[in-house]
Amino acid sequence: MICEVVAIGTELLLGEIVDTNSSWIGQQLALGGIANYFQVKVGDNHERMVATLRDALERSDAVIVCGGLGPTQDDITRAAIAEVMNVGLERDETIVARITEMFSSRGREMPANNLLQADVPVGAVTIPQQPGTAPGLMAPVGDKVIYAVPGVPYEMKIMVGQFVVPDLQERAGISSVIRSRTLKTWGQSESGLAEMLATRIDELDRIGNPTLAFNASGVEGLKVRITASAADDAAAEAMLADEEAVIRTILGDLIFGADDDTMESIVVEALAAQGWSLAMAESITGGMMTDRLTSVADAHSVFRGSMVTGSDDGGGDVSEAGAQALAERVAQDFGADVAIASVGVGGPGGPEGVDIGTVFLAVRQPSGTETATVKVPGDRLRIRGYATISLMNMFRRSLPSVR
Amino acid sequence: MICEVVAIGTELLLGEIVDTNSSWIGQQLALGGIANYFQVKVGDNHERMVATLRDALERSDAVIVCGGLGPTQDDITRAAIAEVMNVGLERDETIVARITEMFSSRGREMPANNLLQADVPVGAVTIPQQPGTAPGLMAPVGDKVIYAVPGVPYEMKIMVGQFVVPDLQERAGISSVIRSRTLKTWGQSESGLAEMLATRIDELDRIGNPTLAFNASGVEGLKVRITASAADDAAAEAMLADEEAVIRTILGDLIFGADDDTMESIVVEALAAQGWSLAMAESITGGMMTDRLTSVADAHSVFRGSMVTGSDDGGGDVSEAGAQALAERVAQDFGADVAIASVGVGGPGGPEGVDIGTVFLAVRQPSGTETATVKVPGDRLRIRGYATISLMNMFRRSLPSVR
Repeated sequence: MICEVVAIGTELLLGEIVDTNSSWIGQQLALGGIANYFQVKVGDNHERMVATLRDALERSDAVIVCGGLGPTQDDITRAAIAEVMNVGLERDETIVARITEMFSSRGREMPANNLLQADVPVGAVTIPQQPGTAPGLMAPVGDKVIYAVPGVPYEMKIMVGQFVVPDLQERAGISSVIRSRTLKTWGQSESGLAEMLATRIDELDRIGNPTLAFNASGVEGLKVRITASAADDAAAEAMLADEEAVIRTILGDLIFGADDDTMESIVVEALAAQGWSLAMAESITGGMMTDRLTSVADAHSVFRGSMVTGSDDGGGDVSEAGAQALAERVAQDFGADVAIASVGVGGPGGPEGVDIGTVFLAVRQPSGTETATVKVPGDRLRIRGYATISLMNMFRRSLPSVR
Repeated sequence: MICEVVAIGTELLLGEIVDTNSSWIGQQLALGGIANYFQVKVGDNHERMVATLRDALERSDAVIVCGGLGPTQDDITRAAIAEVMNVGLERDETIVARITEMFSSRGREMPANNLLQADVPVGAVTIPQQPGTAPGLMAPVGDKVIYAVPGVPYEMKIMVGQFVVPDLQERAGISSVIRSRTLKTWGQSESGLAEMLATRIDELDRIGNPTLAFNASGVEGLKVRITASAADDAAAEAMLADEEAVIRTILGDLIFGADDDTMESIVVEALAAQGWSLAMAESITGGMMTDRLTSVADAHSVFRGSMVTGSDDGGGDVSEAGAQALAERVAQDFGADVAIASVGVGGPGGPEGVDIGTVFLAVRQPSGTETATVKVPGDRLRIRGYATISLMNMFRRSLPSVR
């Protein structure tokens, strides 16, 4: 089963909007075991849209068309599909009733053009999931099929995830499910991780399922993605859990989280689990650590306060002892159980004998204070970003693990 | 002149990387007056790449292929172009010498496969700009042309901007240049701006050049893009400057900057112009304002320090007077000329009689302290982002303008 993705919209060609929908759909198709060889962007032009759909149906078994289903004159996907199907459009009274009801229940007047969204190519059916006003369509063309979904990401994701991919799998006779889990690591290079995991990767290459893949995410570390294929959800999840346990045994606390976890969400979670409150003193990191940690939804239950100094030395010694003094001070000032402090040299210039990019860290816990020194590369802005994630990771490792 | 964009890479189809290159190229083509009707993503597969290039050449006059020019086995764009041209590949000794020199000048050993990048389809020429190891190619196919550029954004942008678009314009006989400037506004809705500019938009519609377009950028405000077409760079820039002056007269200080300016870069620039130092007290904004302002390259010349409190009240009254007291305190603590402070209610809960989303602001300047109250919508995270930009904008308006 080969499925093509077509994204509709002149604004995509003009670069006013980046087409992230197709990327997301591509991910879902891969996870669903459906091949995807082409993704095409085409503008709001009837002839070119029709030609694109015909080309796509020639080389693929199915097409997902994303966008152009709204109520304006630009929204011509319905008419293009009708022409490809060689049929007319007819107004679907069920959709008319639903759209009318949506507007009246919100107490809003319905512009008449909204009913254009109820025009359906004869022979096409609507997709059951309808999170917005624009209905999704499934349109048979011979033994092939076009799925039309709205360009609004939230609506598109519900329709593709809950209807389109399962329908494609059923057509393809795919009874297995594919699931993946991403383990997030920090502190090791890609080749370092590959070396640590070499024996396991060899074993998995022989077995063929699950599989492992690495993905870099810049200063945020490296991801290890486990992908498992199994007869059903429960079996796939069990396989992921088993493999995760194996990988965790090998990589230990290089792994800071999984899937939607971030370094900051893990730190906040670990603090909340201990019932500890937090204060911070930042210098070289310029408030980035405070901003990231307080952006976690539960942060205000643990965060007591931060001081961000304009000078890289935080007003004291550029040393581990200087960082320790700052940590003690902000713990006291803000009345926090735990405090983290950093001083460093962001350049240009700095105290004699200390290289640019040197950052000193202190973590004060109820049980005592630890200090450390890290060297981070780059100019001031790179040092700032790299120091922030690096210090959060050291802090995380000092806290009792939540995973 | 119609030009198509083809992005190469299986990782694009799998959604591991979002294809932002094509969006950028689309923008440049539009600015250059070159039509672009299709953008296609195809994986690292020889047959499908060849078929895509042939299809593209059938319906367009030119094709920009982005990616697949590196030194690995996946990088098969050169071979695909050779097949479309119906020629072989030959090693270009000039490129061999350049790549060898690049490695030796950096003291690095050159992996042998790097020389694959010197293989050029017979009849193709290299693009003069070569910012990386992978050379760009211009390959004639009959009276049409394929341009191949690397997928590395920095290298791609130099080649497309400096060579491909000018070459396309020359082929199209476009002697005029198109330039644009973006004015960034904050504090007015799209319909509000449209109303203020209605008379001018009508005038420009009659004249036809320059043109205006609006673009929303969420919480960061609205952009007004001026696009001018003229005989040469100087004339286009003069037209942009004239139109900018007209728009600035109408919109006044709703406009906070242009092009690459950000709210924070403008604030830092205005402070530096006055020679004033800055302290901040944050509560509800959680360090976001400090993080944004200190991320500006010159920030450390003006920034003295920030205090971020865990409680939304900053330890005092949730009122304009409370914000004023905090501003005075941090100005003194950090020895700063200017201080900005906010307190507010992020919810859930809060002091009686003050709605969630209410933020009180104080700006302390050498000449005195101003206070204000704003109401911002949404949950805690939305309030945080909206309050931050809203407060930075109020602070900007209190400073002597730099534009």
